[in-house]
Amino acid sequence: MSIKFAVLGAGRIGQVHARAVAAVEGATLVAVSDAVEAAARKVADSYGCDIRSIDAIAAASDVDAVIICTPTDTHADLIERFTKAGKAVFCEKPVDLDLARVRQALETVEAEGGTLMVGFNRRFDPDFMAMKAAIDGGRVGTVEMVTITSRDPGAPPIDYIKSSGGIFRDMTIHDFDMARWLLGEEVETVMAQASVLTDPEIGKAGDHDSVNVMLQTASGKHAIITNSRRATYGYDQRIEVLGSEGMVSAKNMAEANIELAGKDGFGTPPLLNFFMTRYVAAYANEIAAFVAAVADGAATPTTGHDGLMALALADAAVLSVKEGRAVRLSDVTG
Amino acid sequence: MSIKFAVLGAGRIGQVHARAVAAVEGATLVAVSDAVEAAARKVADSYGCDIRSIDAIAAASDVDAVIICTPTDTHADLIERFTKAGKAVFCEKPVDLDLARVRQALETVEAEGGTLMVGFNRRFDPDFMAMKAAIDGGRVGTVEMVTITSRDPGAPPIDYIKSSGGIFRDMTIHDFDMARWLLGEEVETVMAQASVLTDPEIGKAGDHDSVNVMLQTASGKHAIITNSRRATYGYDQRIEVLGSEGMVSAKNMAEANIELAGKDGFGTPPLLNFFMTRYVAAYANEIAAFVAAVADGAATPTTGHDGLMALALADAAVLSVKEGRAVRLSDVTG
Amino acid sequence: MSIKFAVLGAGRIGQVHARAVAAVEGATLVAVSDAVEAAARKVADSYGCDIRSIDAIAAASDVDAVIICTPTDTHADLIERFTKAGKAVFCEKPVDLDLARVRQALETVEAEGGTLMVGFNRRFDPDFMAMKAAIDGGRVGTVEMVTITSRDPGAPPIDYIKSSGGIFRDMTIHDFDMARWLLGEEVETVMAQASVLTDPEIGKAGDHDSVNVMLQTASGKHAIITNSRRATYGYDQRIEVLGSEGMVSAKNMAEANIELAGKDGFGTPPLLNFFMTRYVAAYANEIAAFVAAVADGAATPTTGHDGLMALALADAAVLSVKEGRAVRLSDVTG
Amino acid sequence: MSIKFAVLGAGRIGQVHARAVAAVEGATLVAVSDAVEAAARKVADSYGCDIRSIDAIAAASDVDAVIICTPTDTHADLIERFTKAGKAVFCEKPVDLDLARVRQALETVEAEGGTLMVGFNRRFDPDFMAMKAAIDGGRVGTVEMVTITSRDPGAPPIDYIKSSGGIFRDMTIHDFDMARWLLGEEVETVMAQASVLTDPEIGKAGDHDSVNVMLQTASGKHAIITNSRRATYGYDQRIEVLGSEGMVSAKNMAEANIELAGKDGFGTPPLLNFFMTRYVAAYANEIAAFVAAVADGAATPTTGHDGLMALALADAAVLSVKEGRAVRLSDVTG
Repeated sequence: MSIKFAVLGAGRIGQVHARAVAAVEGATLVAVSDAVEAAARKVADSYGCDIRSIDAIAAASDVDAVIICTPTDTHADLIERFTKAGKAVFCEKPVDLDLARVRQALETVEAEGGTLMVGFNRRFDPDFMAMKAAIDGGRVGTVEMVTITSRDPGAPPIDYIKSSGGIFRDMTIHDFDMARWLLGEEVETVMAQASVLTDPEIGKAGDHDSVNVMLQTASGKHAIITNSRRATYGYDQRIEVLGSEGMVSAKNMAEANIELAGKDGFGTPPLLNFFMTRYVAAYANEIAAFVAAVADGAATPTTGHDGLMALALADAAVLSVKEGRAVRLSDVTG
Repeated sequence: MSIKFAVLGAGRIGQVHARAVAAVEGATLVAVSDAVEAAARKVADSYGCDIRSIDAIAAASDVDAVIICTPTDTHADLIERFTKAGKAVFCEKPVDLDLARVRQALETVEAEGGTLMVGFNRRFDPDFMAMKAAIDGGRVGTVEMVTITSRDPGAPPIDYIKSSGGIFRDMTIHDFDMARWLLGEEVETVMAQASVLTDPEIGKAGDHDSVNVMLQTASGKHAIITNSRRATYGYDQRIEVLGSEGMVSAKNMAEANIELAGKDGFGTPPLLNFFMTRYVAAYANEIAAFVAAVADGAATPTTGHDGLMALALADAAVLSVKEGRAVRLSDVTG
Repeated sequence: MSIKFAVLGAGRIGQVHARAVAAVEGATLVAVSDAVEAAARKVADSYGCDIRSIDAIAAASDVDAVIICTPTDTHADLIERFTKAGKAVFCEKPVDLDLARVRQALETVEAEGGTLMVGFNRRFDPDFMAMKAAIDGGRVGTVEMVTITSRDPGAPPIDYIKSSGGIFRDMTIHDFDMARWLLGEEVETVMAQASVLTDPEIGKAGDHDSVNVMLQTASGKHAIITNSRRATYGYDQRIEVLGSEGMVSAKNMAEANIELAGKDGFGTPPLLNFFMTRYVAAYANEIAAFVAAVADGAATPTTGHDGLMALALADAAVLSVKEGRAVRLSDVTG
Repeated sequence: MSIKFAVLGAGRIGQVHARAVAAVEGATLVAVSDAVEAAARKVADSYGCDIRSIDAIAAASDVDAVIICTPTDTHADLIERFTKAGKAVFCEKPVDLDLARVRQALETVEAEGGTLMVGFNRRFDPDFMAMKAAIDGGRVGTVEMVTITSRDPGAPPIDYIKSSGGIFRDMTIHDFDMARWLLGEEVETVMAQASVLTDPEIGKAGDHDSVNVMLQTASGKHAIITNSRRATYGYDQRIEVLGSEGMVSAKNMAEANIELAGKDGFGTPPLLNFFMTRYVAAYANEIAAFVAAVADGAATPTTGHDGLMALALADAAVLSVKEGRAVRLSDVTG
């Protein structure tokens, strides 16, 4: 029996998820919705599904689950609405930029006994999964220190930045989730640094482009996150985990696995420089995991709580930069 | 307008090509044929096409092109039959194990003005394509020496080996094609060595499992090919090309791009150890290239002549081992 | 004309420097001094020099320069004494564990017009020098972020730790110096985290074994330092520098540059796991640089001021951990 | 008790060996000889030894061993003379370019009960030694295939080439020795290819610059050697050994272990491009091994027989190119 899906929002990421639903066994794409007719049309034509309104999808008896890819400020409302309509919900991160609003939405999901998966795609990257499997298999002993390097090839448009909630909530949020996942223990304190080095316009917009964060858990484990909005050599996505018995690291992905040698030395191509290319397998795996969880009535591998915690860490980082101090997570979550 | 396809032979490689046709824009899978009903059924169900007999496909007005994935000894006949039926033909290598029969089939194709692409999938591997582009872009100067390392994780069943035509015609044939492609000049002489090191049963079947070949062109360019039927660390597929200005090499593909460090040092996972996993992108690209060529009425990127030449090099290698001498390609092609 | 040297302290590092002096052109080892007769004897026999008392060396007319390798608590006194005696002084880091005492010693050196080089050997490592040359040559544009990973194979004895001044002053001090050198701009604020993860005895001794530090300069440049007293895979010494145009990184050094492949994948040997083996070239280059500076009457490449600043950063890190806040360097240097 | 050495020939390689003798414990450099006074003077001054004539050294009671670094055509005579004079002899390869003359010299050494080590420095390279130790330790199972890539950064002067005995005897000879060492079994047949690709002057001098060789042992093991007189990216020295259980490979050595990343991708420096720099450790280890053997009265790790066999393989390769056939080693050794 196939689970019937609707995709809400047919933008870039909506298209990625629509394709994933179409490709996964056990899932059928029934409908797509988008305020922009042409965007919806493109998905409908590519994967042979209906175009419907949000209202129609909420009311539809032939839709079991929805994938929310609409603008961030609609996420919490849609999560509540579709949970109440009895649909399983997959929502792109973040649930909301406001922690209280996130908490409220999660309470609604819980009250309704709903299913909510928040899209932290990186947990489904094959290399990061292999790394996690190595850790869980005891290959590095007890985890002590997680180091995450995450640099974008270039900054998004200033207009995007202005409504993004800031670099910690927009970009570092992925790394906060990875840190929690790999530490295997909740973070207790957060210290952060931030500056504007790549483009003064980002500073004028009230944001930063170069940040570092240190996290510490109650038992003393550490995570370090380093972010930049600029990396001329491509989309830099590296993680390493030091444990009592060793270390595991995941390497970057290049455009091609070739090497050129000449009088100036040896060269390899730049990194894949677009998140959808870099994480193409992760996006497909993520949707497959959601389908499997819904089909089995099982817990989703990432949850609304994960979304909440990552946002809380971002809020703590913002506060740490502002006040120049170590912020306890409890200062933020109350 | 979409090109309508039938796949002949629904075994392992037939399934791969069926999936590729289904996924490529501009192509539609119309029918599949296989002597084994269940095999054909699996493809038909997966991709929503008819099951038809070979005869019916040859006669069908709604089939523009066929992909031949049947046993080797049927290839030449089917090429001739479908060419005469006006279908564009993609045929898995080899066209035939007998050079004269290959030549005859190619003459038929030419006489009919037919389209024949022989499946040398490796030319469509993204890394090898990037390597070729670097060479064609002058990044290594004039090509001087091509080194190809190609080792299978393990030997195929003895029964397969017995009917394979021997390691040079079954396994090295891919490397002969790569050597020709990368040298950019026809080979003039062949020297080969062969022995049985991994399994005496292979020797009893009249074949070898460990071979090396040296090729030389008229202008003195070299290629070296090294093959083994056993590589405990996975499917070893490396190429390097030395030129007057530098060198370009393509690296192996591992199961995951992670590294584990511990008291014994640093470790990375084994190589992908199955040709369909290793060359998944190559198979898809190959069919896409065929579709594009048929759609444009253009020459196919690999041809029947390529199939003929690779087989001739294999025959020369067999003769070189037998007679312990450098064999001129003209000794074999007559 | 050769510069005549005496080595004060014939322990492990004293022997390294004695060998370096013996090997460098333009330098002659004249005398060695050590409270332990056998230690001095070993150096004297190996390199054919006298054994003399500290007093005798200070008074000697045939000694131009001394290398101080005695215990830390004697450094400042010896620097002052030998500067006053008109000898050029090379002193192992740190000058002293107390910032005020360091400042006092440097004032004496300045008043005397003396020459003092403090031993930060890593600046003389060939790979780090190549990295610095790349930065200075504009290969990465403007430096934005320095990331230093420095992990010891194992902790020193607890007795050593007790008198070491703590991990920031004993171990991180090298990384503070590297950060300053590579940032090319003084640090303004320091944030640090510390915990005990590898051995509770270290905690009982009042120290930490796992620390992270974030540094920020006035213009917003960052450096991150991560230290652990344990790395099962060897002596982990990596640096990377992100700039506006690219990144440069220096890799670790393994016991041998070989790779083993087998059914479990690919393996390379552990890292060189002893600082004297890892930095053998750096120690030699360091002494050669001192000899060259003395011979030319030029400024030494590392100075007493460098020693002072690295210690100030360590003090700031200690304070940051204690008070859970960003510490301005001026809070420490007064 | 220290072994007293004289170095015959104070050219480039003579200086390397003189320095090695001076640095090795248990050895003393007593004398140097060279037809060119200035060359001898340089060594004598650097290491504090006498300048003596060949005659004087042969007659000296204070010389236990000699290192022959004179021109090739004097090697056999000097080996015989100094063996008869009761000195242990280390001789640079080759013993002679003529196989019969080599055999004669070895017979003399044997008749005199002399000690002769032929300088195949690569066996003493730390990475190749680690590789050999891995093989001997059973890490790759039974050796099946040795692949040696050896490319010089550039060709030597034409005058050198004219008297070199040809590329197989001058350059490949090192690889023949490595192949024998790593195969652990004598070679039975040789096939070789040769052409002139880098400089037509080399062809006019009757030599080749680009050659490949395939070796096969009685049990069917293979070795492949590939040589070029030109590699723009540095001195390319790689070896890999495939066995029944896995593979071991030794990597190249770069000028520095740094990596630069930028918009064009990732780059590492060229390889060390001079044999004395690349093999600096090997030369030192080689002399240390000779000293140890002489001190212990033990067999030297490389022998006159090794020199003979490597030359025989070179002769077989020359014949294979000339006659276009597989040459049995017994065709050459008679």
